[in-house]
Amino acid sequence: MRIVVLVSGRGSNFQAIVDNVAAKNLSVTCTQMITDNPNAYAIHRAHNAGIPVTVIDYHAFPSRKEYEVDLLLALDELQPDLIVLAGYMRIIGKEIVLAYKERIINIHPSLLPSFPGLHAQAQALAHGVKVAGCTVHFVDEEMDAGPIILQRCVRVCDDDTVEVLEERILAEEHIALSHAIQLFCDGKLKICDRRVFIL
Amino acid sequence: MRIVVLVSGRGSNFQAIVDNVAAKNLSVTCTQMITDNPNAYAIHRAHNAGIPVTVIDYHAFPSRKEYEVDLLLALDELQPDLIVLAGYMRIIGKEIVLAYKERIINIHPSLLPSFPGLHAQAQALAHGVKVAGCTVHFVDEEMDAGPIILQRCVRVCDDDTVEVLEERILAEEHIALSHAIQLFCDGKLKICDRRVFIL
Repeated sequence: MRIVVLVSGRGSNFQAIVDNVAAKNLSVTCTQMITDNPNAYAIHRAHNAGIPVTVIDYHAFPSRKEYEVDLLLALDELQPDLIVLAGYMRIIGKEIVLAYKERIINIHPSLLPSFPGLHAQAQALAHGVKVAGCTVHFVDEEMDAGPIILQRCVRVCDDDTVEVLEERILAEEHIALSHAIQLFCDGKLKICDRRVFIL
Repeated sequence: MRIVVLVSGRGSNFQAIVDNVAAKNLSVTCTQMITDNPNAYAIHRAHNAGIPVTVIDYHAFPSRKEYEVDLLLALDELQPDLIVLAGYMRIIGKEIVLAYKERIINIHPSLLPSFPGLHAQAQALAHGVKVAGCTVHFVDEEMDAGPIILQRCVRVCDDDTVEVLEERILAEEHIALSHAIQLFCDGKLKICDRRVFIL
């Protein structure tokens, strides 16, 4: 199975995939990392892991539409079995969603449907929830809304800062994302309406 | 501490409170059960436990407003330190919320803010979440929206029916509600904006 990982920032979830592949906990080939951000720290991680990087600089395009055309071209050339959004901070456009229907997954740092969108951990803290977590889900045309593959939860403590909560959730993200990739690649995920069954 | 419990139906959360008081796991006095439903099975439970019952039949009133006037009168007579909504299926009106500000708590069978309102467990199943749970929260003027005291989570399994999931969550509700009552009665809950800190 050939996976392509999209990353916008430091890429700790990308690193977790790389580490799990190296440790043979995850039997996939990460063929490429794509980033919209030429300054993403994840680029260094990819170089260190010997994984080719494609930079498609979002700000170099006159519009989101034109950026997406290039992104779709890059994806089509790579012919991935699975596209993994691992801290990719842009919405995936309709054309790409349709071209890779049920083959794009995203990790989000909340127990969706609570706290979609940016700064989910800060939203959770401000709302005062006592249980937080992360969600791996298929990507559809709405943000953070597709069928849910896995969720893992963590406690929220009274003295948590956003940073502390982020780190606690991130540890679960690292586990959940690799687990979901393996389930997908083993053909064990069955989508039925908006429920995902694990065969 | 004198608590009054409001119930609309079978009253399993009420029973859990009664049992925890009897087992000396919860050091409060449950002075009265109030129900809006003259056919609530919880009435039998209260009789069995020797707890007085007030029936304020919702459908006997021409409007919600008039029902609420009677409910407020009944509460004021009882002078509760804490009002516990334990499967009470009506929204508490603004006047009662203001009269008992930060002294009314509710148990809801979801990890709020996900799935407020009726049939929370069925909502969760239909949405396909993998983690569900329950929330004890202070009651404010919006439905299922006040500051969160405790949350407990459960797994959702692929073969869950609504009934199976309800039962799994209910077991956690029984623990969470009594725990929250004890924390309140021990003066250990501090509301700050919409976060609840446990002292």
